[in-house]
Amino acid sequence: MRNLNEQTVTQAVVDLLSGTPDPRLKALLVSLITHLHNFAREVELTEQELQAAISFLTATGKKCDDKRQEFILLSDVIGLSMLTVAMNNKKPEGCTESTVFGPFHVKGAPRYDNGADIANGAVGEPCLVRGTVTDRNGEPIAGAELEVWQADAEGNYDVQYPDLETHQARGVLTSQQDGSFEFRTVVAVAYPIPVDGPVGELLRATGRHPWRPAHLHFMIKAKHYQTLVTHVFRNGDQYLDSDAVFGVRQTLVADWIKQPDGGYTLTYDFVLNPEG
Amino acid sequence: MRNLNEQTVTQAVVDLLSGTPDPRLKALLVSLITHLHNFAREVELTEQELQAAISFLTATGKKCDDKRQEFILLSDVIGLSMLTVAMNNKKPEGCTESTVFGPFHVKGAPRYDNGADIANGAVGEPCLVRGTVTDRNGEPIAGAELEVWQADAEGNYDVQYPDLETHQARGVLTSQQDGSFEFRTVVAVAYPIPVDGPVGELLRATGRHPWRPAHLHFMIKAKHYQTLVTHVFRNGDQYLDSDAVFGVRQTLVADWIKQPDGGYTLTYDFVLNPEG
Repeated sequence: MRNLNEQTVTQAVVDLLSGTPDPRLKALLVSLITHLHNFAREVELTEQELQAAISFLTATGKKCDDKRQEFILLSDVIGLSMLTVAMNNKKPEGCTESTVFGPFHVKGAPRYDNGADIANGAVGEPCLVRGTVTDRNGEPIAGAELEVWQADAEGNYDVQYPDLETHQARGVLTSQQDGSFEFRTVVAVAYPIPVDGPVGELLRATGRHPWRPAHLHFMIKAKHYQTLVTHVFRNGDQYLDSDAVFGVRQTLVADWIKQPDGGYTLTYDFVLNPEG
Repeated sequence: MRNLNEQTVTQAVVDLLSGTPDPRLKALLVSLITHLHNFAREVELTEQELQAAISFLTATGKKCDDKRQEFILLSDVIGLSMLTVAMNNKKPEGCTESTVFGPFHVKGAPRYDNGADIANGAVGEPCLVRGTVTDRNGEPIAGAELEVWQADAEGNYDVQYPDLETHQARGVLTSQQDGSFEFRTVVAVAYPIPVDGPVGELLRATGRHPWRPAHLHFMIKAKHYQTLVTHVFRNGDQYLDSDAVFGVRQTLVADWIKQPDGGYTLTYDFVLNPEG
């Protein structure tokens, strides 16, 4: 292990990793490190560029706190999140597709009764959301836990207001005996992902816009079914074909329908995939 | 850009990057993101594993401060630093080889006169270090700035003592008219890299030891010459063939010679490569 050069150092690292007790961890690290080394050789990475990458990663870590996850955002904007979601959530035709989890989920969202208003003060036009949770045969799934989170009319999630101490436009509901659910909230709007950190710098440096088409987040859990993490996107949104995090699926696009009283309704039926 | 799957998402990201104004940044990002995506597909990365990687990177960022650079340490232990150093510092035969910069350099090291004791209170056996700075023809390079930093007898750098407010075993000297330099310090010892952070977890999980063979760091700058970042390693050290950061070069190994008075001497002559 003396006199390693830019070619031989890779095998030296791989050899050292041969002692890793967990075979999966060993496989992950050997592949990741080999690809990183191949990248560095392919582009002839300079020392200044490696230092810049280290500074970028350091700043990304510093930007994270209990309400901000800049590394998820980074993974999202380079397509790694969507790649991983797509690869791990192949389902039979008819099941609701998955999409990215995103950086704005937080633990401890309040529970609401069916029909409740989860806006809890969030600004925006009123919207009634309803639908069903079923299996592929249309059989209702009762007692499914639906966690919802979304941005308000300003394009902000509750966690983006530093002084806000309540949860807004975020909550957990339960499907009824017939698989149905219903709640009131505000209309979701398109919004830019946060650009005041390293990920924003990256987007600016690459000439990319930070916008995501309007959507609601759902995480739906039910016994004996795979957990579904997905969005419902708003039909007609100008960013459906340029989502900054590559998450749009046509089957997840739905209409927000304006009602005579001025509010909106959105109907979406979720189909879960059994476990195993 | 709708309905991207784990194959098509890569091209979608690459296409988006086509608008990057700086061609070098574009090339770096296209290569890096393509390699990361290839890695994720090759190992069939799970969502839990991606989340674990994000948590690891977040913790690595959180561990960094003005005295601790955990991302440099990470780059060092996966061989990426040495790869980059080796690739960027190819020099004619006879020039002193480069090695890793490491995470313990800090700005603002004190300047010393030739012959001074840079230990400044650091614990350890006394050691006189001397040598020359020349070009490949043996012509002396006067006025070269030699920055030195090293661990003490406890295996710690000054910045690893939270309450220490002075610089110890760290300083900047200047070569004399004849290219010579001389300073007093303490004997360097082998030490483990810091293992109280994510990099330590990684080493434990992979069954690797954290030790580095005893060494002095040098960064030598002189007008019209390439800056030299290197170490001098102690001959006979048990970790010369298993350096945790892959940095040992045989040409950088030297003898610490015990003197009748109990102290040690180390002689090393540096040969700089002209710029351009």
